Amino acid sequence: MRARTKPWTHNEIATNPLILENPEANKGGWRTALGAPAQAPLHVELGCGKGRFITQMALRNPDVYYIAVEREPHVIVSGARFARENNLPITFVLGDVSNLSDLFAPGEIDRLYINFCDPWPNKKKWAKRRLTHSRFLAQYQTLLAEKGSIHFKTDNRQLFEFSLNEFAANDWKMSNISLDLHNSDYTDNIMTEYEEKFSSRGFSIFRLEAEKPKF
Amino acid sequence: MRARTKPWTHNEIATNPLILENPEANKGGWRTALGAPAQAPLHVELGCGKGRFITQMALRNPDVYYIAVEREPHVIVSGARFARENNLPITFVLGDVSNLSDLFAPGEIDRLYINFCDPWPNKKKWAKRRLTHSRFLAQYQTLLAEKGSIHFKTDNRQLFEFSLNEFAANDWKMSNISLDLHNSDYTDNIMTEYEEKFSSRGFSIFRLEAEKPKF
Repeated sequence: MRARTKPWTHNEIATNPLILENPEANKGGWRTALGAPAQAPLHVELGCGKGRFITQMALRNPDVYYIAVEREPHVIVSGARFARENNLPITFVLGDVSNLSDLFAPGEIDRLYINFCDPWPNKKKWAKRRLTHSRFLAQYQTLLAEKGSIHFKTDNRQLFEFSLNEFAANDWKMSNISLDLHNSDYTDNIMTEYEEKFSSRGFSIFRLEAEKPKF
Repeated sequence: MRARTKPWTHNEIATNPLILENPEANKGGWRTALGAPAQAPLHVELGCGKGRFITQMALRNPDVYYIAVEREPHVIVSGARFARENNLPITFVLGDVSNLSDLFAPGEIDRLYINFCDPWPNKKKWAKRRLTHSRFLAQYQTLLAEKGSIHFKTDNRQLFEFSLNEFAANDWKMSNISLDLHNSDYTDNIMTEYEEKFSSRGFSIFRLEAEKPKF
């Protein structure tokens, strides 16, 4: 269900300095624009929703600079307000993740988070819209730094199966693959809003990490 | 449950020429021993049970030479008798799969089938007994020819998760990964006896193929 329009959405977008108006201007110079050290880790979440995941990550990892991309104004403002009120180093980009190469230069990103993206289920002709499709992986591979990686979570078994095959076919080095995250040894998990809702209904959560190919 | 002792077990083992008494003698010379062409594909199943899988594979693929390894006399005889009666090119080895390097020379095997092996569940100290543990993968890597591969099936989610991580960590090239084989596009499946029983109870079947690392 689409979040209802909140009266403060437009105001928050207009006045919150963490929501960038012209993020493309930072392409190739994100660290400088954010006042970050040259070697600071830059982590990007594709589709941050209401931002619980990325704000909690930022609270836990004060040395990391986070960028949250989200196309839905009504949800991006929740995380952006929380980040503003808590002075977190997160930058919010209102936009579509299919244009990542307009936002980032090759090698500029250290890690990508993809959490519960649209599975485009059961429709082969839509497979290429999945954010783990080979055509996206090729783009991420360019934008990620050496040893850069993707951390991916979903509750959709078919999407996870598809993703395992896409990562494998494109020679990404997978690790920490989990077919039931909440009953695994992985203790560092931060749940997204969506994850909490669906896992509480008994759905398994799938997760993996994948490092970009070396060559 | 262990299969009951059948009165004909010992007789079948003693008289069926497809069950080898001294299989180690063929190490490095399997194709010659089997009267196979030098380039004939040699496929080995680890733990063939009653042999339905491998006998059906042999019926479908007359050019392949199959070797079935099974430690349980009471079950190996079922497949061996069927193969004898139907004149199938399968050789049966009564023995433990942990001694594969006593049976095969480096590069001698083209493909390994591992179907529903013991998952050694929930016991970390037993992980190294799982047939997809790194120590076994290292052995398979030696015994498989270039481009040799493993075809692996299980109904045990934890074992499959473990195996995905082991194959990935050791740089095997995975493909055709399925998290629900019987509801997938894969149409070539031959069910083992065990698989039929457990999938009929609603359990998902997991499957993958993995090619040995190139270097």
